[in-house]
Amino acid sequence: MRRFVISQAKNLIDQTRRRPLPNHKSLRLLSLAAASDSAPVLSSPRLFSSSSDMSGSDSSSSSLPVTLDSINPKVLKCEYAVRGEIVNIAQRLQEDLKINKDAYPFDEIIYCNIGNPQSLGQQPITFFREVLALCSHTALLDESATHGLFSSDSIDRAWKILDQIPGKATGAYSHSQGIKGLRDAIAAGIEARDGFPADPNDIFMTDGASPGVHMMMQLLISSEKDGILCPIPQYPLYSASIALHGGSLVPYYLDEASGWGLEISELKKQLEEARSKGITVRALAVINPGNPTGQVLAEENQREIVDFCKKEGLVLLADEVYQENVYVPDKKFHSFKKVARSMGYGEKDICLVSFQSISKGYYGECGKRGGYMEVTGFTSDVREQIYKLASVNLCSNISGQILASLVMSPPKPGDDSYDSYIAEKEGILSSLAKRAKTLEEALNKLEGVTCNRAEGAMYLFPCINLPQKAIAAAEAAKTAPDAFYCKRLLNATGIVVVPGSGFRQVPGTWHFRCTILPQEDKIPAIVNRLTEFHKSFMDEFRD
Amino acid sequence: MRRFVISQAKNLIDQTRRRPLPNHKSLRLLSLAAASDSAPVLSSPRLFSSSSDMSGSDSSSSSLPVTLDSINPKVLKCEYAVRGEIVNIAQRLQEDLKINKDAYPFDEIIYCNIGNPQSLGQQPITFFREVLALCSHTALLDESATHGLFSSDSIDRAWKILDQIPGKATGAYSHSQGIKGLRDAIAAGIEARDGFPADPNDIFMTDGASPGVHMMMQLLISSEKDGILCPIPQYPLYSASIALHGGSLVPYYLDEASGWGLEISELKKQLEEARSKGITVRALAVINPGNPTGQVLAEENQREIVDFCKKEGLVLLADEVYQENVYVPDKKFHSFKKVARSMGYGEKDICLVSFQSISKGYYGECGKRGGYMEVTGFTSDVREQIYKLASVNLCSNISGQILASLVMSPPKPGDDSYDSYIAEKEGILSSLAKRAKTLEEALNKLEGVTCNRAEGAMYLFPCINLPQKAIAAAEAAKTAPDAFYCKRLLNATGIVVVPGSGFRQVPGTWHFRCTILPQEDKIPAIVNRLTEFHKSFMDEFRD
Repeated sequence: MRRFVISQAKNLIDQTRRRPLPNHKSLRLLSLAAASDSAPVLSSPRLFSSSSDMSGSDSSSSSLPVTLDSINPKVLKCEYAVRGEIVNIAQRLQEDLKINKDAYPFDEIIYCNIGNPQSLGQQPITFFREVLALCSHTALLDESATHGLFSSDSIDRAWKILDQIPGKATGAYSHSQGIKGLRDAIAAGIEARDGFPADPNDIFMTDGASPGVHMMMQLLISSEKDGILCPIPQYPLYSASIALHGGSLVPYYLDEASGWGLEISELKKQLEEARSKGITVRALAVINPGNPTGQVLAEENQREIVDFCKKEGLVLLADEVYQENVYVPDKKFHSFKKVARSMGYGEKDICLVSFQSISKGYYGECGKRGGYMEVTGFTSDVREQIYKLASVNLCSNISGQILASLVMSPPKPGDDSYDSYIAEKEGILSSLAKRAKTLEEALNKLEGVTCNRAEGAMYLFPCINLPQKAIAAAEAAKTAPDAFYCKRLLNATGIVVVPGSGFRQVPGTWHFRCTILPQEDKIPAIVNRLTEFHKSFMDEFRD
Repeated sequence: MRRFVISQAKNLIDQTRRRPLPNHKSLRLLSLAAASDSAPVLSSPRLFSSSSDMSGSDSSSSSLPVTLDSINPKVLKCEYAVRGEIVNIAQRLQEDLKINKDAYPFDEIIYCNIGNPQSLGQQPITFFREVLALCSHTALLDESATHGLFSSDSIDRAWKILDQIPGKATGAYSHSQGIKGLRDAIAAGIEARDGFPADPNDIFMTDGASPGVHMMMQLLISSEKDGILCPIPQYPLYSASIALHGGSLVPYYLDEASGWGLEISELKKQLEEARSKGITVRALAVINPGNPTGQVLAEENQREIVDFCKKEGLVLLADEVYQENVYVPDKKFHSFKKVARSMGYGEKDICLVSFQSISKGYYGECGKRGGYMEVTGFTSDVREQIYKLASVNLCSNISGQILASLVMSPPKPGDDSYDSYIAEKEGILSSLAKRAKTLEEALNKLEGVTCNRAEGAMYLFPCINLPQKAIAAAEAAKTAPDAFYCKRLLNATGIVVVPGSGFRQVPGTWHFRCTILPQEDKIPAIVNRLTEFHKSFMDEFRD
């Protein structure tokens, strides 16, 4: 460890020489932080090497017109821990590992901070990529050699998709809601999933779920008097988007003791408290399966939630991006639309937006940025405004649109690709279930750690009962106790997790979020390193 | 004009009351409107068929919680004509054409409303699509048959790109600024273009130019006291984004008489006027080559603009997405960064953001949604905030990132694809130049029409000197006179153009924007139809 600190310091001096100034102070802070846990909690990463002629300038001495004081304060307020400080430190370590291999007690950085399966070796579904390649370079469809290289149903599907695109032009802007034929396929997929009708005109295709969430926040939030009920812990997209649009996050706490249960009494309590402060609560955000918490809601619970929204006049924002990620036999995913429709609630009764993404599920196509929102229960004049927002960005990317349609209408029995598709899909999902179980059990064996099972999604969110001495040390280092733990973990093991404080949590409790995504053969080593680190951490700080 | 706005608002309110009519009735209304010019000017299109159980509901009788009164008023205020009312009418006509072929005096709708080249038959650059297909389905790279199907340099390039992506995972989220190796290629391309250094850490890759513009507006605008100087006429992305972020558009008028000249005296006048109203002007947006106006700025003029920004402490937002689209031998594109650096201004002297897109140029890959902004001259703490904004959306789509790198580092002499690449590129650009010239000459032959040449970009923006009788007829029909003309044109010819009022213009003047993008073999027919229509329009309304 000592050797590590020295090498870091040396490194820092080199960097400072190499890189002119504005950054060297912050770099040093961060490097030292990485080594000593004395990091001040920075609001965001410093990832830039400055250009050469910036030398010697910094924000205080510069004559440049834009300063932190003059920019939009909502931007300053926004936080996004999933790509925050710890990840930044990890990226620096990774760079340094290339040069100073022997300086660290680990060989590689393992990114368990973000649901990014393919970055950790998960292979894409072959059929999906075949179709994408054929639609990218359509000249392939005219070559006989293509039949030897591609499955026959991928060729058929590519033709079918191209026929749905005016002029077969995958390089053209589409309708701002997405290509109609692809929305037809998605609506059919939703109908098959739910057993209730879905309308392609309700589908707004997006570059991933995030832009859809931003669009709805932009629509619903006029000022800080507009509130959005969000689960705590929550995926920080919600807090970030609400901050950027100047609204109020109205927290409702999930009950860790009952497996991150969502209690209607808690919703009511928080709604009333917000109203008593003059906040108009516009919507309820529910993440199911949960992120970072991994719970899968019971259908009965979903019914109560629908009734609550109906009664209180709230838009239900249903983040359903993990709908394919359920790992336990006693739980099943039900879309909120299916639940609402099965209760007899139609378009006139409830405003419901369901977000879906191609980044999650068994496909994990994060880099393709595709997804959609199904928007139901809005009057036509309000929907026109949503359409206008979509049209200002013209359309989402067509590759992502194609993948979103494939995800909702994969190969069927009898198709050339069907068997291999099912094998790939089930291989990924059963392996994820195994990894979730192994990591959960390992975490529960650690002193002072309790961890609910990951029923779904891609994360574990263990609670760490930190010793007072560790909390005091974190305070002395001006960092949150869970961030202190996570930085120590990173420096000792190369494992990157996100402190619970990035997701919010019951005050006085400490957690971290760890994905279940490292490949199966890496899990034993991760468990060993984590166990060893935790033991030595507790030995150092045990009260 | 004021009367016109009031009548619009009234109209909207009436509609809201009147229309329980979900769709078929409103559809008919619009179709009739299209035919008779009596269309109420809707703020945005009605493209939705509502689900069946919406029948009979409307916003006033519904118990749904979201109404036009309760949503964010900034969303209501935002307008985006490029996909607005006329396009909406055109889409309905197109649908109806399929059923009622004989009811119209034309066979097809020709979309000249938007710079979307591939929708009108422009073919993508083969090399770009080869690389994209190989990166989409990387298993192809292991097959020997691939060598018969792809150019050898596309295979080499695909390998090179994959080697730059951690784990070769094109399906993984990348760094929030984009894949480092691809940013290296872009920076090298900028250096080659400008002859001045470019730093890959200054590049933020985006899903097209629009999200980059939104990001900068979000950063710079805190309230309506923050102003952005924008050209008039302007591409409505700017007015839309400023409205959505709650800022003030400070107009500066381009001088039509001098070929849409940008006068510094006009900038100064408007800046001072805005300041006298208590507005802090944060930035100057310049579109070069111009949209919708098509002018290419002279280098000397650019120097004055840089000096103006430097002196007045403004961020220079340089929309340079048409940098490859220059059609006249006496003009040349110079990036603002090159101009600033050649004046001796470095990072410390001027805040400059250059936007580039893969949607324009000779490549026209609109549907792939790729682009970047080069952000220079900001202090590191402000750049961290820009990074944070990028990170909240995780990353731009990887296919778009790959294409952006290809566009900035295309095949070189000696590469397998070089000759065919150059032939494709020059074929497209020389044809665009020809089409621009033909359309410009045709427009200038029309009675009462004057049209500056399209030196660059993809548009002509003719001025139509409308007879008083036509203006009166438009007022009677509660529509702007240029919108009245454009609707008539659409109904008579199937040609879709956008009224100048969607881009703003000197009050009392009337224009429309027409792209130069229909394929060459369609141009003579377009010219004929346009000429014939214009003649009969003037015959009907000549004073």
